[in-house]
Amino acid sequence: MDKRILLTECSDATGLIAKITDACFVHNLNVIRQDQFASAEDGKFFMRSVLEGDFKDSEKIIEEIKKRLPEGAKVSLNDTRRRRLCVLVTREAHCLGELLMKSYSGALNADIVSVIGNHDDLGGLAAKFNVPFTCFENADYTREEQEKLILDAIDKSKPDLVILAKYMRILSPKFIRHFKMGTLVNIHHSFLPAFMGAKPYYQAFTRGVKLIGATAHFVTDNLDEGPIIEQDVIKVNHRYDPETLAKAGHDVEQMVLLRAVNKILDDKVFVHGNKTVVF
Amino acid sequence: MDKRILLTECSDATGLIAKITDACFVHNLNVIRQDQFASAEDGKFFMRSVLEGDFKDSEKIIEEIKKRLPEGAKVSLNDTRRRRLCVLVTREAHCLGELLMKSYSGALNADIVSVIGNHDDLGGLAAKFNVPFTCFENADYTREEQEKLILDAIDKSKPDLVILAKYMRILSPKFIRHFKMGTLVNIHHSFLPAFMGAKPYYQAFTRGVKLIGATAHFVTDNLDEGPIIEQDVIKVNHRYDPETLAKAGHDVEQMVLLRAVNKILDDKVFVHGNKTVVF
Amino acid sequence: MDKRILLTECSDATGLIAKITDACFVHNLNVIRQDQFASAEDGKFFMRSVLEGDFKDSEKIIEEIKKRLPEGAKVSLNDTRRRRLCVLVTREAHCLGELLMKSYSGALNADIVSVIGNHDDLGGLAAKFNVPFTCFENADYTREEQEKLILDAIDKSKPDLVILAKYMRILSPKFIRHFKMGTLVNIHHSFLPAFMGAKPYYQAFTRGVKLIGATAHFVTDNLDEGPIIEQDVIKVNHRYDPETLAKAGHDVEQMVLLRAVNKILDDKVFVHGNKTVVF
Amino acid sequence: MDKRILLTECSDATGLIAKITDACFVHNLNVIRQDQFASAEDGKFFMRSVLEGDFKDSEKIIEEIKKRLPEGAKVSLNDTRRRRLCVLVTREAHCLGELLMKSYSGALNADIVSVIGNHDDLGGLAAKFNVPFTCFENADYTREEQEKLILDAIDKSKPDLVILAKYMRILSPKFIRHFKMGTLVNIHHSFLPAFMGAKPYYQAFTRGVKLIGATAHFVTDNLDEGPIIEQDVIKVNHRYDPETLAKAGHDVEQMVLLRAVNKILDDKVFVHGNKTVVF
Repeated sequence: MDKRILLTECSDATGLIAKITDACFVHNLNVIRQDQFASAEDGKFFMRSVLEGDFKDSEKIIEEIKKRLPEGAKVSLNDTRRRRLCVLVTREAHCLGELLMKSYSGALNADIVSVIGNHDDLGGLAAKFNVPFTCFENADYTREEQEKLILDAIDKSKPDLVILAKYMRILSPKFIRHFKMGTLVNIHHSFLPAFMGAKPYYQAFTRGVKLIGATAHFVTDNLDEGPIIEQDVIKVNHRYDPETLAKAGHDVEQMVLLRAVNKILDDKVFVHGNKTVVF
Repeated sequence: MDKRILLTECSDATGLIAKITDACFVHNLNVIRQDQFASAEDGKFFMRSVLEGDFKDSEKIIEEIKKRLPEGAKVSLNDTRRRRLCVLVTREAHCLGELLMKSYSGALNADIVSVIGNHDDLGGLAAKFNVPFTCFENADYTREEQEKLILDAIDKSKPDLVILAKYMRILSPKFIRHFKMGTLVNIHHSFLPAFMGAKPYYQAFTRGVKLIGATAHFVTDNLDEGPIIEQDVIKVNHRYDPETLAKAGHDVEQMVLLRAVNKILDDKVFVHGNKTVVF
Repeated sequence: MDKRILLTECSDATGLIAKITDACFVHNLNVIRQDQFASAEDGKFFMRSVLEGDFKDSEKIIEEIKKRLPEGAKVSLNDTRRRRLCVLVTREAHCLGELLMKSYSGALNADIVSVIGNHDDLGGLAAKFNVPFTCFENADYTREEQEKLILDAIDKSKPDLVILAKYMRILSPKFIRHFKMGTLVNIHHSFLPAFMGAKPYYQAFTRGVKLIGATAHFVTDNLDEGPIIEQDVIKVNHRYDPETLAKAGHDVEQMVLLRAVNKILDDKVFVHGNKTVVF
Repeated sequence: MDKRILLTECSDATGLIAKITDACFVHNLNVIRQDQFASAEDGKFFMRSVLEGDFKDSEKIIEEIKKRLPEGAKVSLNDTRRRRLCVLVTREAHCLGELLMKSYSGALNADIVSVIGNHDDLGGLAAKFNVPFTCFENADYTREEQEKLILDAIDKSKPDLVILAKYMRILSPKFIRHFKMGTLVNIHHSFLPAFMGAKPYYQAFTRGVKLIGATAHFVTDNLDEGPIIEQDVIKVNHRYDPETLAKAGHDVEQMVLLRAVNKILDDKVFVHGNKTVVF
């Protein structure tokens, strides 16, 4: 018996769950886990079903489900093979390190196929895990050239997902639009929407907050304003300065990013306007 | 349009969701939220569906769903009216106080119809909220007499749910068996299974733990071993003594109890052997 | 033996702890707990010492300590008697209710001596706990008149601390400046600086955050920008709408406010520029 | 100017802080941070002071402080150089991986000088970071021989701290007594004292808890009963099985261990009977 993830996204209507699960039943597919969500806000319906059975006719199954659903429905039937990740970095090692470690140990269902930096600091770390590292130094190119070279390098590695793992340079809308929504993920070092933009730990220090956090989100044209996937915080106090805030925050960053990437790799994340549905 | 909660519990089988949701569809009932869980451990299936539509024929709907399900299925269609709570207490005010406040403000979808104590300390608090208080002092009765009087008083108040809100006397198996599983809830002042039994804060102090917690659970014959509904913890440190641990812990206790009761009132809690499924 | 809290605040210098604790030692005062903080940012020193001994000559002790410290040092020696709280409210019961309950049960070392509302919804709740309630309806007065009446009512109740417990009207700078810094506390229903201003739960819903929170802070002229005392968050997901976010958030609000007030009552909070030092 | 950590431990007495800080003042040492704790339970006093100044006469400073303190006082003046860690492992990579990564990136103020396994699975990981790995397979030796070989290997690496990073074999009292209290740290995969002993995730699954956690503690003769340094938990639900509990738990384990090791490296942890004082 094989296993697939059925993802459905369409306008809400009465009987959707019945129609989809009946189609599965007809094809002898067992639903071993299912989550669905209908947004009262805009009438969108999202469903994720983990199916067991025989998927030789998967194209036919998809077509049959689509026929039963409102016009414009998106339906896919994903296998659970390891995905390909491309990671963009600057100088900080913790997020890349955590992804490499979890990929290495098997806790992340993905291979890191390429690391691209705008500094060369992390080349040595990538090399330890036999991952190709390419560096396009900020100083060596115009921003436009640099972005073009990075895009080419990304495309060459054929990633399923591209991760900005503390990549500390703002990307142009042109760069961002190169990617299908839902395939470019950033980790921001604050609980957004607080402390958008540069130096969030310094901002946090100045404001005197008692919590610091991190946010994993899909990237859109608007800096730090894309759909949020995962957030977490830790408590801090008056004794922290910007440096110790950053050190403590790094642990939250890497965990929030790891959890977000795991959710995406499990096909548990839908983009819903400027939000996400995370099952 | 009316609203009902459909609860289904049966042996797992292929096509269950399809069969149940199709029955809803046939009766023009819209599923506005649904959660289901199939336990790989023992092949039990649980589903909670929030339905909108016309429920005049609710008996018929239930029968039709049952017919489609494996032998022995439990199906119910609950309305969302305010339930009746009976609360048992000893001396500590915080859990009773929180329930009274939330019932008063409307944040708890229930009326507290009776408070029963084995000390009279909390009679004044119940009176503030016009809730009848009955006291059966430990000193005035044998344990057997006391339990009989309490059971009579509980039954007279016709509660949907009975809550041990820091009721500090061990109840006999006979007393506990008087209640249908899922209708008698206790709040224990530790993160079970740590620190079962008496004086958990003193035990926590002695052990030097860095977290203390609280556990809301259904009550069974085995003290502190019933199905857990909700748990939470807070961080503590070497500066806490048993008294300050208790003070800090009270806040967790009242919140954990409140969340557990809210989940039960929303029909989101199934008993599953000695565990719970909480949607 | 008596107990006092010694609070010291001055410019940092070498030997401050030695000088202060030696003065205590000379007066036969035992330090049973002490916390201190020196800010590298601006060279301010803060210390809180819990002392046991004989305090008949407390004025003399204070003078002697002051003499040893840099020019401009603030030194006080506070007893631990129950303080007087005045609470301002609008319609929501949870924060006021928690304060009343904890004051009643003894878990808050303070009496609520007066509740003032700009709506009359919570008069009944205050009455349950025999606390005088005064209402100045928004509709009945100009804002200036209303603020003047409220200030008079507050002053009449001689509070040590004034709490805006979901008081939902913006107060004028004139009103705020009536209070000594550190004596006017607000609970804001977001993790500031995110979602300042009106309707934070609606803002949180629109932004699609995965955490909501609450912030207790001292009030300054700049709305929601005063020194933060305490913050906390809970996890939420796509299923929450503004109403259920608010319901879940209320529990965080009341706990954050309670913890902040407890810290202030224990003399553990210093104002440090636009931040706080919380021991 | 140099920096040292002054650690003091003795019986409590009036004036201790004054005496110690005065000795620092006399030697022109500035206290830039200080924490102290006096246990009401057993009259023990603990203090950690971060000092800046000239430490050429450090032996003399220590002697002078000792002279001022009760008989039997322990006083040390530690520098902040990188310490040496020896890590014992079995098969699971996450804890070792996190320590290697943080040591590599500089976030851990220590070098991992030796990894010793009772399986060879993690030799490849150690090699990536150029750390010597020695393996003594369970199958190849009696337990006594194995422990002797491991002890020899540990001693040869001259570690300041030895870490059981998911080392999955019970160690004999003889092995444990080889180490000075406070130098042998274990990470246990539950919030102790819940789920002591083998297979805590399986135990957690069977009990149906809603939280799982991890505990870093010093090792004593009594398995899982040594002084606790750090604990944390995450929320889980009915959907988790022993395998997914373990996967989620690994993230807590590595973070709890990292935080505990960081605290020890910062000289912030005192052993206090069977508890710890963690500043």
